[in-house]
Amino acid sequence: CHKLVTTRRKREVDPPRFGLSPRWIIYCWKKSPDACLTWEGSPFQGREAISGKLVNLPFKRIKHIITEQDFQPTIDSCILIMVFGQLQVDDDPPMAFHQVFMLKSQNCAWACTNDVFRLGIHNIPV
Amino acid sequence: CHKLVTTRRKREVDPPRFGLSPRWIIYCWKKSPDACLTWEGSPFQGREAISGKLVNLPFKRIKHIITEQDFQPTIDSCILIMVFGQLQVDDDPPMAFHQVFMLKSQNCAWACTNDVFRLGIHNIPV
Repeated sequence: CHKLVTTRRKREVDPPRFGLSPRWIIYCWKKSPDACLTWEGSPFQGREAISGKLVNLPFKRIKHIITEQDFQPTIDSCILIMVFGQLQVDDDPPMAFHQVFMLKSQNCAWACTNDVFRLGIHNIPV
Repeated sequence: CHKLVTTRRKREVDPPRFGLSPRWIIYCWKKSPDACLTWEGSPFQGREAISGKLVNLPFKRIKHIITEQDFQPTIDSCILIMVFGQLQVDDDPPMAFHQVFMLKSQNCAWACTNDVFRLGIHNIPV
């Protein structure tokens, strides 16, 4: 089970550290017309609007390093995943990031139903 | 609806910034014998074990400031909440923290079914 193949998301976390191969994860925004992306307050709905936003981001390459990852089961048979890490956009200095995913078993595949991402650059203790 | 009252968790985030009053949130670990807490790799199961761990933590006071908060609905009618913030334990220097909650509507109340917490002190870009 859990064998459906999908393409990778541009901003996906580094898969080998994750235990789940990206080939086994379906990203729901690619399937559902109701899928929503909010990017710094701006909403995008549906596959075309979301992929258009992601494809046109003004950087070419992101490297990821995961420093911490936590997993919890939910009462709806999902997996809640919280990731700490650092990323480097093109040749910029590395930045801390934080990302949360929800995976749900659907039709013998793991579907990524939620994805919340933030850079940690504004959360510096004062 | 959503009016059941509960007591507050020791490490709960600052409620007024959250939009949901803590009085309207039930923490599932107080109800379920299957509830689990993992604290830095050590497991605690059930209400007594979890509350015993939390009550005996070696600090008296935590102040919270929330700097960022994100909310997403899930396909199981939950609310996924990701919080960035800073906290101060007793008189120690402030530290960045990150916390994720899952709220689910149960019996006309919001139940907190998942809670993942990490300090951000080890996620410094190098």
